Amino acid sequence: MGENIIKCGNVSISLKPMVQAIDRDRIERRLDDLWEIGQTQKGGVTRLAYTDEESDAFSYIQAELSSSYSITEDSMGNLFATREPEASDSIYIGSHLDSVYNGGRLDGTLGVVTAIEAIEAVYNSKCEPAHPPTLAIFRNEESARFGQHTVGSRGALGQLEVEDFSATDQNDVPLWHAMQSQGFEPENLSHPTINTERIAGFLELHIEQGRVLDERELDVGLVTSIRAPVRCRVTVTGDHDHSGATPMELRCDALSGAAEMITAIESVATTAATDGDLVATVGDITPVNGAINKVCGEVSFPIDIRSKEEDYRDTIENRIVDTIETIADDRELRTEIEHLDRSEPVQLDSKFVTVLEQSAETSGAAYCCLPSGGGHDAMNFQLAGIPTGMVFVPSINGISHNPAEATKPEAIEKATRILSNALVNFEE
Amino acid sequence: MGENIIKCGNVSISLKPMVQAIDRDRIERRLDDLWEIGQTQKGGVTRLAYTDEESDAFSYIQAELSSSYSITEDSMGNLFATREPEASDSIYIGSHLDSVYNGGRLDGTLGVVTAIEAIEAVYNSKCEPAHPPTLAIFRNEESARFGQHTVGSRGALGQLEVEDFSATDQNDVPLWHAMQSQGFEPENLSHPTINTERIAGFLELHIEQGRVLDERELDVGLVTSIRAPVRCRVTVTGDHDHSGATPMELRCDALSGAAEMITAIESVATTAATDGDLVATVGDITPVNGAINKVCGEVSFPIDIRSKEEDYRDTIENRIVDTIETIADDRELRTEIEHLDRSEPVQLDSKFVTVLEQSAETSGAAYCCLPSGGGHDAMNFQLAGIPTGMVFVPSINGISHNPAEATKPEAIEKATRILSNALVNFEE
Repeated sequence: MGENIIKCGNVSISLKPMVQAIDRDRIERRLDDLWEIGQTQKGGVTRLAYTDEESDAFSYIQAELSSSYSITEDSMGNLFATREPEASDSIYIGSHLDSVYNGGRLDGTLGVVTAIEAIEAVYNSKCEPAHPPTLAIFRNEESARFGQHTVGSRGALGQLEVEDFSATDQNDVPLWHAMQSQGFEPENLSHPTINTERIAGFLELHIEQGRVLDERELDVGLVTSIRAPVRCRVTVTGDHDHSGATPMELRCDALSGAAEMITAIESVATTAATDGDLVATVGDITPVNGAINKVCGEVSFPIDIRSKEEDYRDTIENRIVDTIETIADDRELRTEIEHLDRSEPVQLDSKFVTVLEQSAETSGAAYCCLPSGGGHDAMNFQLAGIPTGMVFVPSINGISHNPAEATKPEAIEKATRILSNALVNFEE
Repeated sequence: MGENIIKCGNVSISLKPMVQAIDRDRIERRLDDLWEIGQTQKGGVTRLAYTDEESDAFSYIQAELSSSYSITEDSMGNLFATREPEASDSIYIGSHLDSVYNGGRLDGTLGVVTAIEAIEAVYNSKCEPAHPPTLAIFRNEESARFGQHTVGSRGALGQLEVEDFSATDQNDVPLWHAMQSQGFEPENLSHPTINTERIAGFLELHIEQGRVLDERELDVGLVTSIRAPVRCRVTVTGDHDHSGATPMELRCDALSGAAEMITAIESVATTAATDGDLVATVGDITPVNGAINKVCGEVSFPIDIRSKEEDYRDTIENRIVDTIETIADDRELRTEIEHLDRSEPVQLDSKFVTVLEQSAETSGAAYCCLPSGGGHDAMNFQLAGIPTGMVFVPSINGISHNPAEATKPEAIEKATRILSNALVNFEE
């Protein structure tokens, strides 16, 4: 580790001062403090978007920041903090503080807490980065409350539509109303709340939410792209019949048909994953009037197909639809396929990936490059044309959105150091 | 038809008088009248066991019976009516008047209404049957309210246990209390309420509740045996994972595993049905925390396996369990199989089947012999050692326990004539 050299402006300096600057205890203390805001009986966190709990977490962070920071809040309730408000541009770094219902201690919170630590490390190392960092904390990243993801960052970037604000929670409270109740009222929706021309880059740390890093015993993952889903719901209709009185050959069994389809979807996806980036999932199934003593006459299930390559995803989607229709025809079942969602995969900035790779090498971290399986605030910055990078830490056993969410403190430390190195070394 | 001859006592008589005696209009009128008792907005019937509606249906039938009948009610609320109360023995004939939630117009009701007509036809034909008939109407055949089937007939035959009476409905009303509220209070539970030694046979007409007769365009089915189910619930456990972030090869997908099992169960049963009497059904499935964006970590489903041959059913049950376990092992899933229910198939009386076959031939009905897929009051009489026969009429499109339940009036007429002929011709 003593040999590690990083570039600071035009000067090469030893890494050591920066390594010492990562304060693991302070990270853990802040994670613990934030864990208490919205903590559930099950040791999880319910800190939904635009609730008092989310606002309390924002206040907590604000109170933790030293007086060196100049803090601003936009009309969405997002928070930005920088030591150099007069700089001509800045690398934004951060994540979100809201959670799903009974989520875990890490998720977006870890990205916020480590962003502060990475910024502190930059200043403690006496570097003068080309683009001084700005801490960025977004509201409402999770779709748990309103069914709308990354609301705060999309609002900050002028990517929201008027109708997005009429989304309601399970108590029929509209997003718009929830925002007002927390004191926020965006006015010009199609206009960014931040000056995007002054953002040189965006950087976010997040838990992986998958098993790849944990299975491969790596410290960090460097995200090259963000897979986007195409989603549909398949309804299979056959005939409800008496289970005892209907011979096998006279059945038109919707559940058996759906079961054959689900197995086939898995098989198509498994084969496709050997030739390209692809996952496909049937994660739920709903029989209509299912009963132990009836042949099931109707069942529906959703399909979620993701890839970092849109064309490849479309090819496999067509293959899956063909497979479903063939099975339905063979069984004389009727099917309806309702399309729910279709978003574009995002390729993150290749220069940022390179800088993160160099930082990971320099920091002595075991790493790999990988696509992100889910969406994050970061993708909206890349979509806005701002060079964006993401760093993952392992999710132990792949667990996320769950009280059991965990990662090793060593991984957090290494990842924070990589963020810090990247803040110093990234130049537009 | 003019050539049809039936035996009446030791005398052979022409069928004609009996044919004329089947009053189709009266059958339809009584079915319509009973349809109004508990009728739902959807054109169905909700006439649950031990409710005012069930009692109203009993009162209706009692009022329809002429003064020639001697009527008794037992401590379970079952009704028995005969023109010859002093006879040394009797063939009992009938069914039930309760329904499932939003059931159909026929089900047990048809068996009651046609029993009356068959008895009337016997007396109108001036025959003197060896065993004079007794109309038997049972309470609580359906398990819809208390989860207990054929309560009335089992109570009449002394086949109930004390604990059966503590079964509760969805409002936590115990069966015992519901019976009391309708004015009934059986005392000596293990003792029949009727003198079984004086019952020469039992006969029941029912809709098939399956598709065999309708598909084969037959008028009636003669039941040779009653398939009995063995039932279990399979719980499959894998890992919940993020649908986008978990590569196909790192998944332990409980829903895909269950889907493969369900397809395999169908396949084992379809093969087994070519070598013996067998049906197996997965009619429901319950994912735990299923979601469009998660690999499903736990799912459970019931299996219902039926045959008229207990040994064959056991063989296929073992084959199904082996198949499930092989799939689970291959996928590194965990399974638990909970056994729910295991009842014995019942072989109905072969002499009764022969008499019914002769009656069907004589009546010019297109018929087949077949096993019953579900349980009926009749099976309890056979289990009590009383020779028992059953006649099915087709369920159009196999529909039962549904407002759309229907059969052709011609089939009802032919089946009633068969019942009547059998009442005359059956001799113990």
